[in-house]
Amino acid sequence: MGETFPMKGGDSEYSYTKNSMYQKKASDAVKEMIDEAVVESLDAEPTSTKVSIADLGCSVGPNTFFTVQNLIEAVQKKRPSETLEFQVFFNDHSGNDFNTLFSSLPQERQYHAAAVPGSFHGRLFPSSSITVAHSSYALQWLSKQPQGAPNEGRVHYCGAPEDVVKSYSDQYEKDLSCFMRARAEEIVKGGVLVLVVPGTPDGVSHSDHPADVIFCYFGYGLMELANEGVVDKDKIDKFNLPIYAPTMGEMKRVIENNGCFSIEKMELTDPRSKIDGPIDVAKLVMHMRAGLEGIFSAHFGDSVVEKMFAKISDKAQEMSQFFESGYSKSTQLLVVLKRK
Amino acid sequence: MGETFPMKGGDSEYSYTKNSMYQKKASDAVKEMIDEAVVESLDAEPTSTKVSIADLGCSVGPNTFFTVQNLIEAVQKKRPSETLEFQVFFNDHSGNDFNTLFSSLPQERQYHAAAVPGSFHGRLFPSSSITVAHSSYALQWLSKQPQGAPNEGRVHYCGAPEDVVKSYSDQYEKDLSCFMRARAEEIVKGGVLVLVVPGTPDGVSHSDHPADVIFCYFGYGLMELANEGVVDKDKIDKFNLPIYAPTMGEMKRVIENNGCFSIEKMELTDPRSKIDGPIDVAKLVMHMRAGLEGIFSAHFGDSVVEKMFAKISDKAQEMSQFFESGYSKSTQLLVVLKRK
Repeated sequence: MGETFPMKGGDSEYSYTKNSMYQKKASDAVKEMIDEAVVESLDAEPTSTKVSIADLGCSVGPNTFFTVQNLIEAVQKKRPSETLEFQVFFNDHSGNDFNTLFSSLPQERQYHAAAVPGSFHGRLFPSSSITVAHSSYALQWLSKQPQGAPNEGRVHYCGAPEDVVKSYSDQYEKDLSCFMRARAEEIVKGGVLVLVVPGTPDGVSHSDHPADVIFCYFGYGLMELANEGVVDKDKIDKFNLPIYAPTMGEMKRVIENNGCFSIEKMELTDPRSKIDGPIDVAKLVMHMRAGLEGIFSAHFGDSVVEKMFAKISDKAQEMSQFFESGYSKSTQLLVVLKRK
Repeated sequence: MGETFPMKGGDSEYSYTKNSMYQKKASDAVKEMIDEAVVESLDAEPTSTKVSIADLGCSVGPNTFFTVQNLIEAVQKKRPSETLEFQVFFNDHSGNDFNTLFSSLPQERQYHAAAVPGSFHGRLFPSSSITVAHSSYALQWLSKQPQGAPNEGRVHYCGAPEDVVKSYSDQYEKDLSCFMRARAEEIVKGGVLVLVVPGTPDGVSHSDHPADVIFCYFGYGLMELANEGVVDKDKIDKFNLPIYAPTMGEMKRVIENNGCFSIEKMELTDPRSKIDGPIDVAKLVMHMRAGLEGIFSAHFGDSVVEKMFAKISDKAQEMSQFFESGYSKSTQLLVVLKRK
């Protein structure tokens, strides 16, 4: 079992439910592409009118409900003459707030809903039982913090030397291999696996990844707190935020080594395309807080994390410029695979 | 949608997790019988090595985990030469505390776990997708409070006139018919449905049901509070605890009207057989509180309910005698059905 750091549950100010708009916008940007890819890739004549859909790393909603609805419509487009019966499995770590997920399930849904607790780095479903599996903005989470040389004054590989990046990419390769092995067993022949992950453009070094600049600011904020004597520098050096954005090449290598899937589509897209106007960095920090507060608190304690977010908010203006230029690049990787 | 009143979640003093020992003892009394019945009834040659088990009205555990383990062992006994893959669906109302359920899932389980939120009076699963469905101490809950003449000074049909009993039995018949219709669609041909419910022995009038005497005491307690001016008597008259214990005859009639199941076993058993020594009524009240606090609070408010339970606890000694004689009778109905 790796470490688990669920998104902030409930529906309070800092909750994921109220702070996942950027993921929604980013997903919208690939909605049509996913729709098309599912229609094109899914086998036209499966043996059953029962269709099982899994959303892996679903968090607490509402994004997962939009995703699932899109996937259902795509499958219906492919098989318009049949009366299909849909069962949807919402998966996340067992510490995820499934109570909140269930309380916000669409009332008028056209599917049987189920939740499946557990890490998607291992098996979750019976063999050959899933028709379409989907995972959006979840697979960037590593199963544990990369082990390696101390990462001096940083909490991520952003801005870090090569050996730190290497410990991250090694862990990513291991995790993705486990993920692919499990999915290969669970997805039916002719079934589809859709992945949306933060990606690193080819030719850009991992440590210069433009969208990750925000992680540098977590390090800056903590180092200021270290200088103020609020937190030990040693504690910062030992912490590695387990988030990784692969290149297409890295992704492809693991999929090909697995050997059970054909690559139907793999491309970097621009997550900005559906966001109007400049990004509100203060809002973005709130949004990142919903996703990251748990893991930072577990290591540094609530009080330090509160102060760290205050430091980061103070730097919102400065961050804006870096972030704006970075986020507008194509840093969202869309992968559509078909089970051979 | 009917009304939903989940068991007390979490793991505090009054939680269901800490107060479901009597249900466990009562289930133990029929464990071997269920085991035998499943082995005898389940079709020997299903088409798939995938076995889906559903526990309907699972609450928050731990009883559901014991139940599921027993069912898995029974299926394995029937098909010893095959490598079976189990998927278990834990079902309860969407307001059930599934977070607590997931956090206490056995680590070393030999099945893929899933939770399914929703009322078992409607559809929960795709057609013909369940091999064994089970429901223990859940089907006594009506989907809503029976509507009828005011039930003067009482909260249940215990001790009530015939027209009150009739409004309960009518509602029960409607609810059980919906339940059976949904299960007939979901359970595979040759699959098994096991029901354990509080039952009323033939020849005993519903209003004299021995184990239900405890519900009379809820009424007594509330009427004392009405006399003290704490609660309106009118409010008591209008409240009907939606819990019903059918006779074998009533159960049989609905199953035969449904027509999709053969009755493999139907008998009244003694829930006392696994309980050593006299029943601790104070503990029993705590245990009932875990299950009933939600529905009483919704109608009367927290403060009245707190006082009502205090009144009932004061009468523990008096209740003991009535209850002891009643609970030792055969008031637990075990039904094993096979999908034709």
